[in-house]
Amino acid sequence: MGKIYGIGLMSGTSLDGIDGALVEISENNYQIIETISVNYTEEERRQLFNLCSIEKATNKMICSMNMYLGEKFAKTVNDLLKNSQFKAEDISFISSHGQTIYHIPKSNDNKYTVVSTLQIGDLSMIAEKTGIGVVGDFRTADMAAGGQGAPLTSFADKVLFYHETKYRAIQNIGGIGNVTYLPAKQSNENIIAFDTGPGNMMIDELVLRMSKGGQSYDENGNIARKGTVDDLLLNELMAEEYIRESPPKTTGREVFGKNFVDKLLQKYNHLSFEDLICTVTEFTAQSISFHYKKYLKQIDEVIIGGGGSYNGYLIERIQSNLKDVQVFTHEDFNVSSDFKEALAFVILGHYFLKGETNMIPTATGAKHDVLLGKIGVTNSNAFEKMLKVKEG
Amino acid sequence: MGKIYGIGLMSGTSLDGIDGALVEISENNYQIIETISVNYTEEERRQLFNLCSIEKATNKMICSMNMYLGEKFAKTVNDLLKNSQFKAEDISFISSHGQTIYHIPKSNDNKYTVVSTLQIGDLSMIAEKTGIGVVGDFRTADMAAGGQGAPLTSFADKVLFYHETKYRAIQNIGGIGNVTYLPAKQSNENIIAFDTGPGNMMIDELVLRMSKGGQSYDENGNIARKGTVDDLLLNELMAEEYIRESPPKTTGREVFGKNFVDKLLQKYNHLSFEDLICTVTEFTAQSISFHYKKYLKQIDEVIIGGGGSYNGYLIERIQSNLKDVQVFTHEDFNVSSDFKEALAFVILGHYFLKGETNMIPTATGAKHDVLLGKIGVTNSNAFEKMLKVKEG
Repeated sequence: MGKIYGIGLMSGTSLDGIDGALVEISENNYQIIETISVNYTEEERRQLFNLCSIEKATNKMICSMNMYLGEKFAKTVNDLLKNSQFKAEDISFISSHGQTIYHIPKSNDNKYTVVSTLQIGDLSMIAEKTGIGVVGDFRTADMAAGGQGAPLTSFADKVLFYHETKYRAIQNIGGIGNVTYLPAKQSNENIIAFDTGPGNMMIDELVLRMSKGGQSYDENGNIARKGTVDDLLLNELMAEEYIRESPPKTTGREVFGKNFVDKLLQKYNHLSFEDLICTVTEFTAQSISFHYKKYLKQIDEVIIGGGGSYNGYLIERIQSNLKDVQVFTHEDFNVSSDFKEALAFVILGHYFLKGETNMIPTATGAKHDVLLGKIGVTNSNAFEKMLKVKEG
Repeated sequence: MGKIYGIGLMSGTSLDGIDGALVEISENNYQIIETISVNYTEEERRQLFNLCSIEKATNKMICSMNMYLGEKFAKTVNDLLKNSQFKAEDISFISSHGQTIYHIPKSNDNKYTVVSTLQIGDLSMIAEKTGIGVVGDFRTADMAAGGQGAPLTSFADKVLFYHETKYRAIQNIGGIGNVTYLPAKQSNENIIAFDTGPGNMMIDELVLRMSKGGQSYDENGNIARKGTVDDLLLNELMAEEYIRESPPKTTGREVFGKNFVDKLLQKYNHLSFEDLICTVTEFTAQSISFHYKKYLKQIDEVIIGGGGSYNGYLIERIQSNLKDVQVFTHEDFNVSSDFKEALAFVILGHYFLKGETNMIPTATGAKHDVLLGKIGVTNSNAFEKMLKVKEG
């Protein structure tokens, strides 16, 4: 089988911007060979915040911004190609997550509020403005099959890290922390996934506040390393309701977000900057190890990704809390933490086009295997190229 | 080439309900073999009206109703199959227009209000709940290519009625009247399309009001036939700004809708029920013939479709105003007026899957040929069956 090329696009709920990765695919090997990051402008972020607001979003705004973002995603791809030695006709497909503007994982109020999710960034617009076929809008298919539409990247974790004999925990530390537990293949045990609690969210928020905007994160954990843990605060954090709940579970910015940090700062204003960051970093590390010890039967290796993998002190603390486990980062496996999600969507898109399952029912809660994704394509050459992926 | 089967789904801007048609396809011959019409409940209509309202629609409602309608569309397909002798595995594809909740054909206010359109009824949900692959969401691709996203059914008119030597006008009389002008193939003249003015909208509204809700339309034109034309009113209507504008042009419910009828009723309250209906029917007939004479070079045949084709008196009046032209209805060509749009989307979906252009740039204003449509599919068998359409 020859090599083919796919481009992954990720635009996360933080509304920061768009990550793109050009990926070389041979058999089931995925290698990032060029990347791009595009920040949203302040004005765009304001628009996107409004789109996510139940009070402010209108049908007209959603209608417009679906196309606007589609064009912006396309421009990101075209810029990525310009920086590389590739042309549109070299690329078999684009795979785009889209911008989430609403997500209802469980239904409650009334019969017209159903389990659903809304990602925008029109696939046909991306296809038309790049000349490449597009896969995207993955989450609704999982929900149609009874799942919560998340986590989707666990499937990529499986493709990248599933091992015949080793039990692995793939820990992402973004704003939120989440784990994909991959028991050894030969064990036939279920893959599970859940949010372990805060990732960098609390650390970043505290650094931003206490440095009065001078710093936005704790580089390599240098601040935390100078402090000592306050046991009272740590115990209070570890007693949080979310930590005590059993998986499957997910958390959002509402639980460990700004309000949470507000209250914490009021109560613990006697602690030094360094001690606070040290304690909250320890909390992040222990919330991870706590869940592992309580819910994951056996672990040989932990492989950490996301922004948190660049926090050396946090990694040390996780290692220290998991004595018999080998702790790695994604980079140790030649996978970029920064572009892991863009890569993940190339993998989902590739499997979709092969007509192979690209999700894990035991992770999302779907009742059975499904193909996740939709296709947008506006010219027959791109369509043909895209469908050749199936032929291998 | 063998026969294949597709199912078309149409849900119009009147928010009445869903029309479905099971269509047998052999070469480029399309034959409706089973149909279904499902009315929205009063509660559903209220939800949909709110979705179309810029004040009332929220991101949460759009997120939910996209899935809700997807499931309802799927149920429509499953009920259609139950009434037929076909099973899901006999059907190569579903083609769904979706429910339009916003449409911006021209952009104006600001850079975040762009040419765009929003159809809901999730394709993956339809696919998952039917087990059949789905094509849909056609309009954005046309807009991405610079078009207005409408009219789309002109392409179906071309497939069904394009003639080597005859010049044909395919006139739809729904709420609005619109024409697809098909010059003889061998002339190489451009196909054009535009709205001719009101279709049944004004007649229906007046009948409803003057019968105090007793009747909702003029059956076979029986009311109009008993009246006589009031020349003053007719002249005033023919002088309306929309009628005088040059194509390309489109009109919506706002121009000839309830407010328009309100004013007309106030000014002409001395006219009898029959004279009013007769005059407005004549206006509908003359607005069509006026445009033909002014903008269409040559016409050999007019082929009328839509609900208006069942109004015998209206057809007579059109024929009388177009002396040298032969007037037919769709039924004369064995095409059901009621399910013409559902059929049209089967045709669009079929061409899309063949990788062939399924729109007319000179009708929509797009800068070049494109494929319109997206694919939603959740199982590999359905995916494979769908892609076999390409092979013929």
